[in-house]
Amino acid sequence: MRDRNKLLQVAAENLLKKAELGKAIGLFEKLHPADAAEIIGDLPDDFQKMIFETWDIPRAADTFQEMDEQEQMDIVELLSTPLISDILEEMEADDVADLLGAIGKKDAHRILAAMDKEDAQEALRLMEHGEDTAGGIMTPEFVALRKDMTAQESIDLLRAEAPGAETIYYVFIVNRDDQLVGVISLRDLIIGQPSRLVEELMNPSVIYVDVDTDQEEVARIMSRYDLLALPVVDREHRLLGVVTIDDVVDVIEEEASEDIYRLGGVIREERLDSPAIESIKNRLPWMAFNLGTAFLAAGVVSLFQDSISRVVILAAFMPIVAGMGGNMGTQTLTVTTRGIALGQLEFREGIRVIARQVGIGITIGAVTGLLAGLVAYLARGNPYLGLVLFLAMTVNMGVAGLAGAGIPIVLRLLRQDPALGSGVIVTTFTDIFGFLAFLGLATTMLRFLI
Amino acid sequence: MRDRNKLLQVAAENLLKKAELGKAIGLFEKLHPADAAEIIGDLPDDFQKMIFETWDIPRAADTFQEMDEQEQMDIVELLSTPLISDILEEMEADDVADLLGAIGKKDAHRILAAMDKEDAQEALRLMEHGEDTAGGIMTPEFVALRKDMTAQESIDLLRAEAPGAETIYYVFIVNRDDQLVGVISLRDLIIGQPSRLVEELMNPSVIYVDVDTDQEEVARIMSRYDLLALPVVDREHRLLGVVTIDDVVDVIEEEASEDIYRLGGVIREERLDSPAIESIKNRLPWMAFNLGTAFLAAGVVSLFQDSISRVVILAAFMPIVAGMGGNMGTQTLTVTTRGIALGQLEFREGIRVIARQVGIGITIGAVTGLLAGLVAYLARGNPYLGLVLFLAMTVNMGVAGLAGAGIPIVLRLLRQDPALGSGVIVTTFTDIFGFLAFLGLATTMLRFLI
Repeated sequence: MRDRNKLLQVAAENLLKKAELGKAIGLFEKLHPADAAEIIGDLPDDFQKMIFETWDIPRAADTFQEMDEQEQMDIVELLSTPLISDILEEMEADDVADLLGAIGKKDAHRILAAMDKEDAQEALRLMEHGEDTAGGIMTPEFVALRKDMTAQESIDLLRAEAPGAETIYYVFIVNRDDQLVGVISLRDLIIGQPSRLVEELMNPSVIYVDVDTDQEEVARIMSRYDLLALPVVDREHRLLGVVTIDDVVDVIEEEASEDIYRLGGVIREERLDSPAIESIKNRLPWMAFNLGTAFLAAGVVSLFQDSISRVVILAAFMPIVAGMGGNMGTQTLTVTTRGIALGQLEFREGIRVIARQVGIGITIGAVTGLLAGLVAYLARGNPYLGLVLFLAMTVNMGVAGLAGAGIPIVLRLLRQDPALGSGVIVTTFTDIFGFLAFLGLATTMLRFLI
Repeated sequence: MRDRNKLLQVAAENLLKKAELGKAIGLFEKLHPADAAEIIGDLPDDFQKMIFETWDIPRAADTFQEMDEQEQMDIVELLSTPLISDILEEMEADDVADLLGAIGKKDAHRILAAMDKEDAQEALRLMEHGEDTAGGIMTPEFVALRKDMTAQESIDLLRAEAPGAETIYYVFIVNRDDQLVGVISLRDLIIGQPSRLVEELMNPSVIYVDVDTDQEEVARIMSRYDLLALPVVDREHRLLGVVTIDDVVDVIEEEASEDIYRLGGVIREERLDSPAIESIKNRLPWMAFNLGTAFLAAGVVSLFQDSISRVVILAAFMPIVAGMGGNMGTQTLTVTTRGIALGQLEFREGIRVIARQVGIGITIGAVTGLLAGLVAYLARGNPYLGLVLFLAMTVNMGVAGLAGAGIPIVLRLLRQDPALGSGVIVTTFTDIFGFLAFLGLATTMLRFLI
């Protein structure tokens, strides 16, 4: 199947190259919507328009749903209001809410007005929740059972309602006030005796989240407890919706990408195939900021011009102190940020974690500093040069531990994203402090170095 | 439920502090196995031993299964062979295979010999597959339907076999030769008319993978096509097992962690709460290697001692060139590595991606270089100093784009992990080249700089 999809994909692309749009559309229909969406997303606007106008609504909706938000927004502008509202009616309400929240208010209202009332209201309700919360990623389309139904009645109900495959595998049980009281798997319903009450078969200790729980926390809970579906409740414990595992897979990838980009000093996600001009616009402000921090470090060096002019070899050794500190700081930042993301940090342990990282930094700084000092001594025949290098590296790598662990932990305490303190902030610390420690020490011991 | 778990967890920890082990064990039984596993994993050996010896086998197995591999290996050493083999018999075969593959061969054989024959054989078969392949993460415990069964017969079979909740939601269909021919969701089985043949109800275009497919590719396919279960076949297209989404969630987190650590120059995963001595052992070899590369860069600088002694301010500006190149290189590396991990790189596009990144580097280098050059000119009153800084930054940030994109792409072509070329390799390039470009240019233009 996978190979077949790949073949069809190549064939469709070839047909498009020859401008045989009709045949290509035929092939798209044989592709998995995710594959079709990928190819179509890259096509010129008029091709995209023609394809969506040719297709029946369910197929158009399936494919549209697989596109990323930017592509969806582009297509919304291409299609007529009746067509796009028909397509949105076929989609899952949480995806509709995300899209409508992303496009302008005016467009959203125009489309909502053309949609079926019930679908529109459902989307509107979901749009009230933050996009990155449990409420924002849950689907409100689920079947809940009442606890006084029998297993057979439950199965009959499911058969009649035929809910989407996404949410049927765990069925949640509510009381008369729609409050969540239990969960049962479809498996246990089928295996259970038809006449028994759901209440007797269900598991009453169901794991749930509040509607405003952050999506990262939702992902952590589902991953930790190996859940396929997680119910979302309001303040009165009423069941509002269900987060399903496929949405969480996307969240996990999204959050991991975000951390990776931030740590690497890339502020906004950037695709490998996005145009160069976008990458430049994306990165330039941050690089200009970096330039500012680089001048700060250069300013520190320029304070010691006199020492350098008297012992020129200091200029060669000073990047070692700064660079090793930068590497240590990046390592520490990585371990700390990832550790926080994976839930390894307990609140009260912050100070201990920082202290440990400072200790690790000083130890590794002392060991590599000793090595570097020895090399410097042997190369230049001056033990004091080695001593200065050793001391500066030990201190600076302690600073690296402090900055690398401290910055994300403090950000976390301030309820900010720990990855915001990306590598550049940490290496600014280690650069400035490294130059200061090395050149400062060298200046105080200058008479031994000449 | 979540809050209740948290409360129980704190209570259990408090009881343990007061050494009230009996009461704590009682509380553990009320915790979710994942939570119990976390606390127990941190307890002293004799407590762990006592808990597992007190519990009945299913509870012990549930909790043991939630521990990470290192903790499991520690417990294997604490418990008697009959007890550990009883626990393993209760676990899923893929987890058993992972654990037995991780402990020594001698121990594995001792435990396998004590296990139920069928369970042992299943684990042995799985151990033949690479741990990071579809075969290594699939479960062989699934129910396959024959295509000539009716919907009712199928449901009866499922009821009788009562397979684990993990694999029941999609049921795969095989022919007489056990070859995979289709898939049906439990939902469609229930909704379908009881008398119809499975063959008529099933979806014949089922997405599958070969047994030796890399787990990263497995995760990509399941995430792309929003699958809850993915069948695994052998060369003859026979159904061997099923990969379920909860295993893939772990794979995605694992692979994201691996990329994050590698990019940050952390070679082996490190927990925030692991002892300092382990972190030091873990990072020291890599930092020693870094020291070597730092000395390389220092060596380049020392070649230009003569120029620096005549224009000391060069020492202050040279870290700007190297540092900006390093930041650019890290950004490019991050975008490229993540792009490859997310499947954005098409094979034939490698050269184009590299060229684009070089272009981006040169452009940003020219813009920030112009800025830096102007500042240098205004600060020192020498336009040639500004010119040298501008040229060196432009060139070095082009090199940063080349190294940052080229290293991971070449590693990928060589079928290595693209993240192997971590930041340090790239910044070694940009340091050395930055110093060389800046000090080299300055030396050739020395008479204008004095």
